[in-house]
Amino acid sequence: MRKNEENKFPSELRFDLISKDWVVIATGRAKRLEHFRKEKRREIKISPKECPFCHIETQEKPVLIYSHGKKASLEKIPKDWTTIVIPNKFPAFLPYLKLEKKREGEFYQKMNAVGYCELVITKDHQKSLALLPLEHVKEVLDAYQERFLSLKKKRFVNYIFIFHNHGAEAGASQPHPHSQIITTPLVDVDLKKALFNAKKYFKEKKRCIYCQMNKWEMKVKKRIVFENKDFLALCPFASKSAFEVIISPKKHLPYFEKISEKEKWNLAEALQVVLKKLFKALNDPAYNFYLHTAPSDGKEYPYYHWHLTILPKTGIWAGFEMGARMEISTLQPEKAAEYLRKA
Amino acid sequence: MRKNEENKFPSELRFDLISKDWVVIATGRAKRLEHFRKEKRREIKISPKECPFCHIETQEKPVLIYSHGKKASLEKIPKDWTTIVIPNKFPAFLPYLKLEKKREGEFYQKMNAVGYCELVITKDHQKSLALLPLEHVKEVLDAYQERFLSLKKKRFVNYIFIFHNHGAEAGASQPHPHSQIITTPLVDVDLKKALFNAKKYFKEKKRCIYCQMNKWEMKVKKRIVFENKDFLALCPFASKSAFEVIISPKKHLPYFEKISEKEKWNLAEALQVVLKKLFKALNDPAYNFYLHTAPSDGKEYPYYHWHLTILPKTGIWAGFEMGARMEISTLQPEKAAEYLRKA
Repeated sequence: MRKNEENKFPSELRFDLISKDWVVIATGRAKRLEHFRKEKRREIKISPKECPFCHIETQEKPVLIYSHGKKASLEKIPKDWTTIVIPNKFPAFLPYLKLEKKREGEFYQKMNAVGYCELVITKDHQKSLALLPLEHVKEVLDAYQERFLSLKKKRFVNYIFIFHNHGAEAGASQPHPHSQIITTPLVDVDLKKALFNAKKYFKEKKRCIYCQMNKWEMKVKKRIVFENKDFLALCPFASKSAFEVIISPKKHLPYFEKISEKEKWNLAEALQVVLKKLFKALNDPAYNFYLHTAPSDGKEYPYYHWHLTILPKTGIWAGFEMGARMEISTLQPEKAAEYLRKA
Repeated sequence: MRKNEENKFPSELRFDLISKDWVVIATGRAKRLEHFRKEKRREIKISPKECPFCHIETQEKPVLIYSHGKKASLEKIPKDWTTIVIPNKFPAFLPYLKLEKKREGEFYQKMNAVGYCELVITKDHQKSLALLPLEHVKEVLDAYQERFLSLKKKRFVNYIFIFHNHGAEAGASQPHPHSQIITTPLVDVDLKKALFNAKKYFKEKKRCIYCQMNKWEMKVKKRIVFENKDFLALCPFASKSAFEVIISPKKHLPYFEKISEKEKWNLAEALQVVLKKLFKALNDPAYNFYLHTAPSDGKEYPYYHWHLTILPKTGIWAGFEMGARMEISTLQPEKAAEYLRKA
């Protein structure tokens, strides 16, 4: 019997109710809390002078522009724009006119990747969403919603995925803060599974599984990072990595795109508070955040509950995570939440 | 219509027959082939003098030792050992005596992470498996098999996962070449899904889906990287990332641990040839490789087909891959295979 065994459960498996995966919380191999505060992130060396997103208005045809909370004309781009949406120059999905399915041999299938790829860019080259004025964060959410509603109407748009990569370690190739929107002609297997499990719970218990979890979390409080009137930010029970935070509406709401003005302000606050806390606690870490909302395929998903996941890059997925697809977190979410509450 | 659309299918979705996921092959955002040849990898600065794996025989109690192809006594450790297996000092799973399940509230579930974590270490501090003598690669496979057979007998060992991380970008924390063995009390969701789909195909078509794919690949040849009498190495049709290579037995074999002496030599050759080709083609890239074989839970899996996956780190998983769980490769597997065949 090894030394660590003396501690009660320094290594445990926790069940994710939505994905039905088990994650590993292995605190025996943990760094101490302060060790998550990394040295400065690897820098992406692109200065404002070389940056393709500074002065974007002279190079690209934007599809949406905001200037200090107001929508601006696409024809007459204001010099003082604050948020701009442009097509992605390096799209993974393209606006093909047809969805062509092809076969190779007896069983291989492929199709052209029909979709739209856009970038949501805030003006400041340096300041991330944690550091911008709150109204600019709200404006970014306005842009998300507006593009979502607009892209939803297009053909072959069955899922709209909005995400944000911050830092080289999180896969960002530009240091200038920006989010990405990608539409896909199909709903990915992971979301399908989540929808399936949420639907099953909804049918059996006549309740939303996400609402039930939020209710429990508000009762026990130990994993809550922040809350306001509309939103709850918490480190989930089955955290996929240290300091994962999920922000979800307190009300049962399946569709992000139906978010109200008031809710957008409160989401902007919750998102910024969490990003600020991570900035302080982990020394401006690299991170990804992304929205999970109901598909845009025209069907109804009354049992789903949209949410936003923030994943700081506190480790690298190695062979175990890639191959066994079991994620290892080296910190209990209860401790992460406590640390973030205080930050 | 954007410029890229003129090309036929620069972006396509390919269906993975085993996972039922779609992967994105987006060559429109591709680097040219030579751009995959990265600058030197980020170095892990641990010299042989500070390395915990050099002279491990004086610090750790090994569980298996080989010296030049022969098993050595654990009592009298030879100075000239070539491969050694030791318990992992920082285990994610621990040899608890009981599998204790616990609940939190109405629906959260957890259990202690029962299992064994071991390291398979080759003597040379510098030389990776690509550069060692072939007999040392074979010896590593001997160690995998022997530990597999031994761990399989233990309680709560329902799955044995063997993997290798090479380079900091692939999650290695030590530069000294080593593989890892982790046993888990449960079969992860991903493998369950693969088993389910393989079983379904086997029942319906009275054939193994992996064998059928190999048959097709040997016919069209365009994705083959290397083959010998027993093994086929190819870039899979639905590659998860650029330069992914899968090595699988040509015969229908569900269980890695039943591998014969002759097959081990041929696997050692195939593995080393592929790693050498990657070394040359991508300038000693960071990579993970891992074994997928039937569970060790005492049940029979006649429909499964074991294989070894090699994933060079040619990109970083960002928000899209993490959140939509759709993987983007920027290179067609046919081109990757052609490039590797020539390397």
